Amino acid sequence: MMNEIDSTPQRPVEVVPGVFKVTLGHPERITPVSVRRSTPLLSGFNSLPPARNDYNYSKVIARPSDRGFHVSLPFDRDEGIFGLGLQLKSCLHSGRKRHLRVNADPLVDTGDSHAPVPFFLSTVGYGVLVDTARYVSFYFGTHAPLHELSHRARVKHRPVADAGSEALYRSSVIGDTIAIDIPAAQGVDLYVFLGPTMMNALQRYNLFSGGGVALSATALGTQYRCHADSSAEDVLALVTLLKHQEMDISSIGLEPGWQTHFYPNSFEWNLQRFPKPSEFVSSLARRGLELNLWENAFVHPDCQLAAELGTSIGDQPATDGLVPDLLSSQGRDVFVRHHRTKLVPSGVRSFKLDECDNGDFLPAAWSFPEHTRFPSGADGEQMHCLLGVHYQHATKDALRETPPGWFGLARSSGALAASLPFALYSDLYDHRDFIRGLVSAGCSGLLWTPEVRDATCTEDLIRRLQTAVLSPLPVINAWYIRNPPWFQTDAAKNNDGITMADSQEAMTQVRELLRFRKSFVPYLEQAFNHYRTTGKPPFRALVLDWPSDPSTWQIDDQYLIGDRFMATPLTEGQIRRTIYFPEGRWTLYGTESVFEGRQSTSVKLPLAQLPLFQREVSPP
Amino acid sequence: MMNEIDSTPQRPVEVVPGVFKVTLGHPERITPVSVRRSTPLLSGFNSLPPARNDYNYSKVIARPSDRGFHVSLPFDRDEGIFGLGLQLKSCLHSGRKRHLRVNADPLVDTGDSHAPVPFFLSTVGYGVLVDTARYVSFYFGTHAPLHELSHRARVKHRPVADAGSEALYRSSVIGDTIAIDIPAAQGVDLYVFLGPTMMNALQRYNLFSGGGVALSATALGTQYRCHADSSAEDVLALVTLLKHQEMDISSIGLEPGWQTHFYPNSFEWNLQRFPKPSEFVSSLARRGLELNLWENAFVHPDCQLAAELGTSIGDQPATDGLVPDLLSSQGRDVFVRHHRTKLVPSGVRSFKLDECDNGDFLPAAWSFPEHTRFPSGADGEQMHCLLGVHYQHATKDALRETPPGWFGLARSSGALAASLPFALYSDLYDHRDFIRGLVSAGCSGLLWTPEVRDATCTEDLIRRLQTAVLSPLPVINAWYIRNPPWFQTDAAKNNDGITMADSQEAMTQVRELLRFRKSFVPYLEQAFNHYRTTGKPPFRALVLDWPSDPSTWQIDDQYLIGDRFMATPLTEGQIRRTIYFPEGRWTLYGTESVFEGRQSTSVKLPLAQLPLFQREVSPP
Repeated sequence: MMNEIDSTPQRPVEVVPGVFKVTLGHPERITPVSVRRSTPLLSGFNSLPPARNDYNYSKVIARPSDRGFHVSLPFDRDEGIFGLGLQLKSCLHSGRKRHLRVNADPLVDTGDSHAPVPFFLSTVGYGVLVDTARYVSFYFGTHAPLHELSHRARVKHRPVADAGSEALYRSSVIGDTIAIDIPAAQGVDLYVFLGPTMMNALQRYNLFSGGGVALSATALGTQYRCHADSSAEDVLALVTLLKHQEMDISSIGLEPGWQTHFYPNSFEWNLQRFPKPSEFVSSLARRGLELNLWENAFVHPDCQLAAELGTSIGDQPATDGLVPDLLSSQGRDVFVRHHRTKLVPSGVRSFKLDECDNGDFLPAAWSFPEHTRFPSGADGEQMHCLLGVHYQHATKDALRETPPGWFGLARSSGALAASLPFALYSDLYDHRDFIRGLVSAGCSGLLWTPEVRDATCTEDLIRRLQTAVLSPLPVINAWYIRNPPWFQTDAAKNNDGITMADSQEAMTQVRELLRFRKSFVPYLEQAFNHYRTTGKPPFRALVLDWPSDPSTWQIDDQYLIGDRFMATPLTEGQIRRTIYFPEGRWTLYGTESVFEGRQSTSVKLPLAQLPLFQREVSPP
Repeated sequence: MMNEIDSTPQRPVEVVPGVFKVTLGHPERITPVSVRRSTPLLSGFNSLPPARNDYNYSKVIARPSDRGFHVSLPFDRDEGIFGLGLQLKSCLHSGRKRHLRVNADPLVDTGDSHAPVPFFLSTVGYGVLVDTARYVSFYFGTHAPLHELSHRARVKHRPVADAGSEALYRSSVIGDTIAIDIPAAQGVDLYVFLGPTMMNALQRYNLFSGGGVALSATALGTQYRCHADSSAEDVLALVTLLKHQEMDISSIGLEPGWQTHFYPNSFEWNLQRFPKPSEFVSSLARRGLELNLWENAFVHPDCQLAAELGTSIGDQPATDGLVPDLLSSQGRDVFVRHHRTKLVPSGVRSFKLDECDNGDFLPAAWSFPEHTRFPSGADGEQMHCLLGVHYQHATKDALRETPPGWFGLARSSGALAASLPFALYSDLYDHRDFIRGLVSAGCSGLLWTPEVRDATCTEDLIRRLQTAVLSPLPVINAWYIRNPPWFQTDAAKNNDGITMADSQEAMTQVRELLRFRKSFVPYLEQAFNHYRTTGKPPFRALVLDWPSDPSTWQIDDQYLIGDRFMATPLTEGQIRRTIYFPEGRWTLYGTESVFEGRQSTSVKLPLAQLPLFQREVSPP
């Protein structure tokens, strides 16, 4: 029951330059790599410095058990660990346990996420993908080895609970291993991504995933999502208003109500609200606007798509709908064909893929159970880990005859997603968490949008929108408010048509932020193009550029945009904040104020000031 | 991989009257029943009405998979499901997924708990114990059967998110099965506890567990826990103060500092703080006070107990200590012997067993990992599920030569715990959650104390203490405040010796509440004696007495105490609250105000009024 596999694993195989595969035990049939639909971008590897293959494979230990499969990897107590997908509660994982459960409601800092990725990245300059579609747990140096306990007992006092966070952090990084606990499996493939730098390791992961994603200027503009009950007429009236107010919006999103049925979905236009979909989309196009359609994957049992899916569905429903098996070619083909022939021809540019995470921790079950069985052989747990990515791929397939460059939205993602043109979002609405998402997502090949809905006041609205325009995709999601939030931030009053006192001022500030975004798009296009070919994320944590500066490790409220900008968002109530300036000289956007690097400074950033710094480029 | 076991399970076997065992597949070796240390109280079954064996075994379906073992049980949409151990976030489980993970930090309503119990109880009049030491998931009617989806789609509109809680509840109870998802296992034993009533089913469960527990008058009195740094002198000075203030305290608790080392623990008296432990305990005894000692099970590597344990420990540490294997006879014997010979002789009356749940979701890892291996063959997950109960048993063994009737504290418990004289507690400190604990715990053979620490103000203190004196064990836990909370509720000011303005008033109200408690003890003794022999819990949810009155189902802030009292606690800020009066006539404690049953009424309950109602006993 507890036999140890030989501590020297199977000889590592270099699968692409600087990426080594290590097979331990008998891996499962369905894993992110085994069912992958992207291919590595081999050309990108040429631009990277050669890898030093100094990963200590001899310290890799594996062990099967009744519970699944256990792996132990070497860990240095001075190592900073990042990654694991979208993490809204913290970014630095050394000294922490992380349980990667797909959860639409990640309220606690445990690793739960809409988009967990079993990939971690070390400041030492390597990354590891644990190729599993299970809710895997990682323990990053959390437990001291038994033989060191006496020594520890003699030399240290455990800090009390109210010690500073730095001390508490240090006190928790006490082990010399990374323990990985994989349920159900009896083996696993590890993929080791070498540096030399942390950034190079991440680039290798992103290139292995298919490279980054390039986006069009329109796709990088601001999206406005209309009230869920809107008709074509309502939307066009809103668009006229937005134009009149000179708001730089480049795409419109429709929420569930565009369909004849939703929860579960018919995937058919509601012709009462939208009598002529193609004409409606053309009207938008004439105004320079692209259309994004909300949906989730759960199919109304009486609609045409359900009939076409036949038996290519799970044996359990979700929100009373059928769950297509997107891991089976038949299920995928039917699902893609329906989108390609029924929805895309009307001119739809992209989709928003809701509820593809796992909602069963909410009061009512909003997803299929973990024990669901799919014809492809996947179970519910595996499908939860893979649905986000495979749903994105299905959408991409459906749009394959349209010009590239569109940008979709998805509420879940996973491993090997770098090449998918989707931004993650969340129904949780904590601005501070949303900022952290911008820091964490880029460490595992993901993009994240901190969407704006209603707000507690104008200040909150503007602070949220500042963060949004400094993100991959600014979204104003007005799905439950009939008027734009700058008209009234309070949702109930907004729907009652009551203008707030400072709405003119709010409107002016919103207009300026959207203009800024538009002016920023060419720079972003470049950063995304660079992402596409080199795997270097356009939005990223400071630690990726300065891994050997430990001051960057704990920073989860600042992030880089491309190579020249650093965003330092503020939240409601803040007028000044502490900013860590990494190496270099930094100029506050639109001012002459210069800040020297390698120091923390308190900086006043009034509401009218965009919290953005430009790095001085040293002469070549 | 997905073969279905024959849907007719092995023939149910009646193991004690009205309790049927059903074996499905190949159960694991280590389960709550297989390692149980209590024996059923057979005499108790005679007092129960005969069981009707009408459980529909033909609808029990089982299926092994790579992930573990899956069981489906019949479910009626009108069934109310309760139990699953201590649940601080909600009590009614129909229409919900519950994942029973042992977690010291259960912040979200998912089933996580210090003391989950894989036992549920139905209003229809039966209960089921799923005999597993795994983090099992239950789905209680959460998913409609696939063949009913079209019908559902035609007849109903799914309520929107802002529908009333009742509507949302009804909308989520849509399936006709209870799905049970057990990780790792390839089989499981179910124990079906028959009624006829819901209460009878619970009684059978408690009697099967060993019967309830009887407690002495002193044990049922109020406990005061001293500051963690206290010396013998400090404690005796405090005791003098308490006597002087006429506070009815019956036991004193010492927190970690009584030992030479803690986190991890030496289990040896700190002779600098407590030079003569026996004399100290005798001094307390002369003042009518019993002593409770804090500890956790994690052993300092350099102490005598560590040497004695030898290899009877887990292969991973917890809080830098060794984890004794209390499931192995050697580990247990050594651990018990140390307590029995080194600590009990000094006169210690009971223990407080901290951290025996699972703390690894906290920032630093406070427990051993799930993949820990123990010599007994248990893994970390199983040990987390069993440690609470087996640690309690070990303490009970250590105290076996002392008079019965003591009452310990434990931060974790599990299945078959009814006969263990321990109250559960939590470091979370939400008063509303604490009240819910009093409602939920009794549905699975557990006792719970809503301990009082500091408070936001006098009102908060008094409201918390009202709940505490209406609980199995009132505890004032001053482990981080040097003066009693009625001197100053603010912790920092308390330690700075700053008296609050209304401390005299607070002291008077505390004194009265402690007096009330003392006067209430004889009634409680009776209720506990009844629990001991019949398994009828002394503190319990209203639904247990009125399962066919659905108004009782959602009530999670009122509970019965014995057969004659109902507590209706209030929290800070409340001066009146809605109370549901079940069948009968109810008199507000200490007044002439009478309320008729089967109605909800808003009742004003000022701070000076104990929120307690007495039921009129109908003439025989």
